Amino acid sequence: MTERIVLAYSGGLDTSVAIGWIHDATGADVIACAVDVGQGGEDLEVIRQRALDCGAVEAYVADARDEFASEYCMPALKANALYMDAYPVVSALSRPVIAKHLVKAAKKYGASAVAHGCTGKGNDQVRFEVSITSLAPGLQCIAPVRDLALTRDKAIDYAEKHNLPITTTKHNPFSIDQNVWGRAIETGFLEDIWNEPTKDVYNYTDDPAFPPVADELVLTFDHGIPVAIDGRAVSPLEAIQEMNRRAGAQGIGRIDIVEDRLVGIKSREIYEAPGAMALIEAHRELERVTLEREQGRFKREVQDRWTDLVYDGQWFSPLKRSLEAFIEETQRYVSGDVRLRLHGGRATVTGRRSDASLYDFNLATYDEGDTFDQSHAKGFIEIYGLGSKQATARDEKFGHGPSLDPDASNKGENE
Amino acid sequence: MTERIVLAYSGGLDTSVAIGWIHDATGADVIACAVDVGQGGEDLEVIRQRALDCGAVEAYVADARDEFASEYCMPALKANALYMDAYPVVSALSRPVIAKHLVKAAKKYGASAVAHGCTGKGNDQVRFEVSITSLAPGLQCIAPVRDLALTRDKAIDYAEKHNLPITTTKHNPFSIDQNVWGRAIETGFLEDIWNEPTKDVYNYTDDPAFPPVADELVLTFDHGIPVAIDGRAVSPLEAIQEMNRRAGAQGIGRIDIVEDRLVGIKSREIYEAPGAMALIEAHRELERVTLEREQGRFKREVQDRWTDLVYDGQWFSPLKRSLEAFIEETQRYVSGDVRLRLHGGRATVTGRRSDASLYDFNLATYDEGDTFDQSHAKGFIEIYGLGSKQATARDEKFGHGPSLDPDASNKGENE
Amino acid sequence: MTERIVLAYSGGLDTSVAIGWIHDATGADVIACAVDVGQGGEDLEVIRQRALDCGAVEAYVADARDEFASEYCMPALKANALYMDAYPVVSALSRPVIAKHLVKAAKKYGASAVAHGCTGKGNDQVRFEVSITSLAPGLQCIAPVRDLALTRDKAIDYAEKHNLPITTTKHNPFSIDQNVWGRAIETGFLEDIWNEPTKDVYNYTDDPAFPPVADELVLTFDHGIPVAIDGRAVSPLEAIQEMNRRAGAQGIGRIDIVEDRLVGIKSREIYEAPGAMALIEAHRELERVTLEREQGRFKREVQDRWTDLVYDGQWFSPLKRSLEAFIEETQRYVSGDVRLRLHGGRATVTGRRSDASLYDFNLATYDEGDTFDQSHAKGFIEIYGLGSKQATARDEKFGHGPSLDPDASNKGENE
Amino acid sequence: MTERIVLAYSGGLDTSVAIGWIHDATGADVIACAVDVGQGGEDLEVIRQRALDCGAVEAYVADARDEFASEYCMPALKANALYMDAYPVVSALSRPVIAKHLVKAAKKYGASAVAHGCTGKGNDQVRFEVSITSLAPGLQCIAPVRDLALTRDKAIDYAEKHNLPITTTKHNPFSIDQNVWGRAIETGFLEDIWNEPTKDVYNYTDDPAFPPVADELVLTFDHGIPVAIDGRAVSPLEAIQEMNRRAGAQGIGRIDIVEDRLVGIKSREIYEAPGAMALIEAHRELERVTLEREQGRFKREVQDRWTDLVYDGQWFSPLKRSLEAFIEETQRYVSGDVRLRLHGGRATVTGRRSDASLYDFNLATYDEGDTFDQSHAKGFIEIYGLGSKQATARDEKFGHGPSLDPDASNKGENE
Repeated sequence: MTERIVLAYSGGLDTSVAIGWIHDATGADVIACAVDVGQGGEDLEVIRQRALDCGAVEAYVADARDEFASEYCMPALKANALYMDAYPVVSALSRPVIAKHLVKAAKKYGASAVAHGCTGKGNDQVRFEVSITSLAPGLQCIAPVRDLALTRDKAIDYAEKHNLPITTTKHNPFSIDQNVWGRAIETGFLEDIWNEPTKDVYNYTDDPAFPPVADELVLTFDHGIPVAIDGRAVSPLEAIQEMNRRAGAQGIGRIDIVEDRLVGIKSREIYEAPGAMALIEAHRELERVTLEREQGRFKREVQDRWTDLVYDGQWFSPLKRSLEAFIEETQRYVSGDVRLRLHGGRATVTGRRSDASLYDFNLATYDEGDTFDQSHAKGFIEIYGLGSKQATARDEKFGHGPSLDPDASNKGENE
Repeated sequence: MTERIVLAYSGGLDTSVAIGWIHDATGADVIACAVDVGQGGEDLEVIRQRALDCGAVEAYVADARDEFASEYCMPALKANALYMDAYPVVSALSRPVIAKHLVKAAKKYGASAVAHGCTGKGNDQVRFEVSITSLAPGLQCIAPVRDLALTRDKAIDYAEKHNLPITTTKHNPFSIDQNVWGRAIETGFLEDIWNEPTKDVYNYTDDPAFPPVADELVLTFDHGIPVAIDGRAVSPLEAIQEMNRRAGAQGIGRIDIVEDRLVGIKSREIYEAPGAMALIEAHRELERVTLEREQGRFKREVQDRWTDLVYDGQWFSPLKRSLEAFIEETQRYVSGDVRLRLHGGRATVTGRRSDASLYDFNLATYDEGDTFDQSHAKGFIEIYGLGSKQATARDEKFGHGPSLDPDASNKGENE
Repeated sequence: MTERIVLAYSGGLDTSVAIGWIHDATGADVIACAVDVGQGGEDLEVIRQRALDCGAVEAYVADARDEFASEYCMPALKANALYMDAYPVVSALSRPVIAKHLVKAAKKYGASAVAHGCTGKGNDQVRFEVSITSLAPGLQCIAPVRDLALTRDKAIDYAEKHNLPITTTKHNPFSIDQNVWGRAIETGFLEDIWNEPTKDVYNYTDDPAFPPVADELVLTFDHGIPVAIDGRAVSPLEAIQEMNRRAGAQGIGRIDIVEDRLVGIKSREIYEAPGAMALIEAHRELERVTLEREQGRFKREVQDRWTDLVYDGQWFSPLKRSLEAFIEETQRYVSGDVRLRLHGGRATVTGRRSDASLYDFNLATYDEGDTFDQSHAKGFIEIYGLGSKQATARDEKFGHGPSLDPDASNKGENE
Repeated sequence: MTERIVLAYSGGLDTSVAIGWIHDATGADVIACAVDVGQGGEDLEVIRQRALDCGAVEAYVADARDEFASEYCMPALKANALYMDAYPVVSALSRPVIAKHLVKAAKKYGASAVAHGCTGKGNDQVRFEVSITSLAPGLQCIAPVRDLALTRDKAIDYAEKHNLPITTTKHNPFSIDQNVWGRAIETGFLEDIWNEPTKDVYNYTDDPAFPPVADELVLTFDHGIPVAIDGRAVSPLEAIQEMNRRAGAQGIGRIDIVEDRLVGIKSREIYEAPGAMALIEAHRELERVTLEREQGRFKREVQDRWTDLVYDGQWFSPLKRSLEAFIEETQRYVSGDVRLRLHGGRATVTGRRSDASLYDFNLATYDEGDTFDQSHAKGFIEIYGLGSKQATARDEKFGHGPSLDPDASNKGENE
């Protein structure tokens, strides 16, 4: 029987050409697999037909938007996932869900390999291939660009020669990846890291310098998940989409960083993630109100590790599963309302309330009648400071104490 | 000989009254100690004279602004110190430098105790007292508000009765602390965490909703420290002051959070830190360009611990010293320029360049002629993914594998 | 109605006297609560009767050995809990289970406070009181030794004067606490940290210098828990007891360290924990075989935090619950056999086997026919080392490279 | 000019054959480089001559034992380096020092590549190559076994055919690597992880089951480094050698684990490290006495990361340098004496004393006259426990409180 290879198919030039290119290079039949993770663009049926027209023996298309929002974006929200404190792992989230569908398609059609359009120097090849072999250890992975010498120029020639039903437009100056959680833009003049992005780079966000009037809303969370906006119930997907629209209109969520790739190089990346950034802002504040201090402190380490792991393509790893058990447990009380003002590039929390709040007005208030017994402070401080006090006494014994000569190095002093 | 107590003196009502209050309660002579950390307000000489007029036997005043900027704010910048990912430890930084001067004054004048104006439910009492006993294990600490029952009402009565040369204005609705690194506002109607701050809360920042034209500048760093703005050399103090002015005019650095105090309660805090937030934004991006990936990843843990420790009043602890040895080592190459656009509440990095950059255009570029050998990727991925692959094979063996039934739970799929 | 106070009762002199002492000082009725956590000694019924004879209005006794072994020791085993890499948190584990019974007794008998026999300078007072208020925020805590000035000498006088039915033996030179997980000994001449423990310090272990013949056994674990010894099913309690007996006979599990107490002081502690140490040794090796590398690496951080938290008295804290969600998830595959040789103070793993093992002979073997494709290594190393390589190139550019002058500092070289 | 390649040369069959094998495969001249890291065996001059006799154009030999002990083993001791809590990174330490000499030789003789004898599935290839390219980014790396198809059988044939001056003994059943810090044994029947090591596996240690009389000694440390044994000054190398001899005679330091390799597989390893394990035991206890609690707690994370990094071949990485700045700072007071009893496989600390000790008898003692003010404890506990107390109150509000029904699940209770 002829070998079968499932190809991650976008409907664009490169993957359309790859259908024939792979067949020519390997002799295998190619099954196109297109997954909608909210990237917009053409209808899935149009894409399916094009795949078949370009030579695919089968086409598998899936609307994975709800799945992606619920099972991939929501865990990232619970983890407040910001790689290098900045990037909400937009592309890193979509690779495992696409990989899952590629593997499903491979099982359905009895394929022995999976192909994807990544180059050999980015993170996505790692994310695809590690996800695929973590889901189906027996599947082979092929990257035509990396392994079969498919270049842009060769693709254009091939499309013209074989009269493929695709427009071979001039090469976009940027490399773009987008889904419901955000949009990533790289290459071109952005590779000079002193250059500022131009306006045409952006698509999910309007210019924050010229915003419409401020937009205020109340987000309701339940166990760390947004469940309503202004009292109207929303699914995870609807929450992200509405926030993308409203926060995008205010220019929120533009990110411009130099970032460490898994493959050992630094690259310059522009992102737009209006909904993601506004949701994370709100979620973090609700956690400040509902998580106990030490739980919140350790969660930072856990969520940083989660984020690095997901960025690094280890979505299906045992460690991620264990980290999520921790994170899930912390979300037990992350329920309540956050009022958010969206305006001019800023998503600002202006209020928060929760039945599960650990903020206790009666303990916190400086008004009379508070319930905090200040007499405990003296003993607390005495014992809390004992370690440092003894260490300093030792420093002094060894002549390493802090310089406290009242007459030395004290130029500002004046008596 | 009469006992002597050094009092942290601000020149305001409460500490002016405390001079006599402490003397009455303890019989000790009081030495007033006023330290300028950039809080603004009256001239140090005016404050000195008032202290003496209110009964202090000596007055020690010190302009510690340069010391504070260089030895306290700069380490915080190198640590990108943001408590709970949000608060640049404004008050937490000034307590140890004030404590240092209190101890200096105590040594100079032979005092046996130090007094401060904090209440018994905040962080600052801990920061003062742990710093003081870490600098001088033998000194006692007194807090008149906490230990000697000095209340606001009693202070007003006392001032009127003793005809102290201070205006007993109506109580400010807020409790405010400010220094060159920022400004903290709490209490009043802000204790209802659903309330939004009103405009009168702010002083260091103008309203970001109505900004002037964008302000662009180039910050030059050397070993993690800002040394020039637009090519003009600046001291740390000057850098912070200029950034406060320029970023403040754009409404940058307003923070509104519910925060975990060391004493086990959550409180609602408003901060303004225009210079600090803009400098941290620039510093973090320069680190992204100049730190090696794993160094940068571990530094997050180190700087989070540093920040928690400083927030928690352990400035003079052995662990902080060890953490700083790490941080200092990482700053070896954090030198270069960052171009920053300040506008409408946003400090946006628009360019970065450094002789010590680890960004390598020739490795990163997708243009032809790059130096990255993509053929290595295949082997890398294979070995890098081996652990997860084996773990999945085990999952499957035990029937715990991911659900991949091509016909199950795949509502979006359409063939 | 008369106030009621539940007293943690051991049956010994101090707590027997405390029954009357508390009543005299507070007017409250005292309910004695004795909990068997495997400390040995008298029968619970004997202890109950003595409590009543000493004036308790009620006596609550509970055999908590199975509960302690299953719900307290087993989590510690899963966490490989060794405080400061040495101490298996023996006393720290028993405090929360005793606290739970104290609170149960308080609820049952309508008490408003709980009393315990701890001093004011140890960890146990913190563990008891934080556990109690975490279980029942409304209960008060009293420590007669700390709060009501009850000293050893006063206790002896009181017992004689009131003719209490207890032998007032000469004070044991040591302070001892024991349960099924181990035994702690402190004070006396051990407070000189240069002194070696004498033989009479030990009770759970025989001298490892003169062991009987080696004892070999096979421990079977299921999800991190020992379920059989040499194929014979055991409960957690039985597993610990049998290992205590067999490892104790070989002198295994003696520990002598200077340890950091929560209250800021260092103390010298001797422990014996033969069963605990042997079980942890076996469990750690089974984890090495069954945990994926990165999961195992991060688990070290999690279990260290768990251990510190439990040592610090935070058994019932939110963070511990979240950490345990992580730990529990990691134990999914920690099942299999470990062969252990017990001899002369050493518990040595001599074999391990598991259906869930990630050790793969075919990948690991250096025999022919292995399944590891060595050709991948080249690419892996190239990409894996890229970050350090670039950092070194920068070092060289700045003249900071490692000294490699072939003629310098190379005294050992000889050509 | 003919290309030159430096070969890591041991004097044994495989590397002796590799001299000609590399020349035949590449046309390059081979320079043999032999480095003494304490592996014992033949004299360096004998090895040099054999290299030349086998066709090397030059031979570089270096006695690096002092360098290895001081600059590689001592940092590992300061880090208490135990990979997976067990293995003192014996081989991982020697690779970078050998790499340094390989690079020195390459610079001296103008070589363009470096060759080593590792296979393609172990850690050592990574350690060598990442070290080499981190020291000299321009050098190429070659591994004849991995890259040039050199097998054991081919090596024997080659040696006989070319009449090389080496004995082609039957293959040792084990693969062995040894240096002054320890000895590693793998492969053969040990690859069945249920098999116990046989006696012939060991060489640095005698059987702990039949020890000579106990050996007691006092180790003096200065800044974390052993400087005297029983009062006699020793160099780092001498300290390790003497401890190897004395602890080895008692059978101390045998290790048998399944370990996670960097290349994603688990392997079974036997180690002997008598000196290293005894020194680490002593050093850890001295740290317990001299490090402040929080410093000690965070150091565990730092040293675990250091150990993983060194195991993973990143000796020359930026992160390791930063971690060492932290570790070095902590060793400021790690000075003093530790008394150690070596006997029957156990290295037991029996006493410790230090001028820099933070153990304070007067604070710790339960004798009368202690300086710890127990009245502070009440306030400390109250504030310290506040977070958990509030969290529990919330649990109860939501019906998630701990089960405390006095009549439920309390089978052991008896009233």
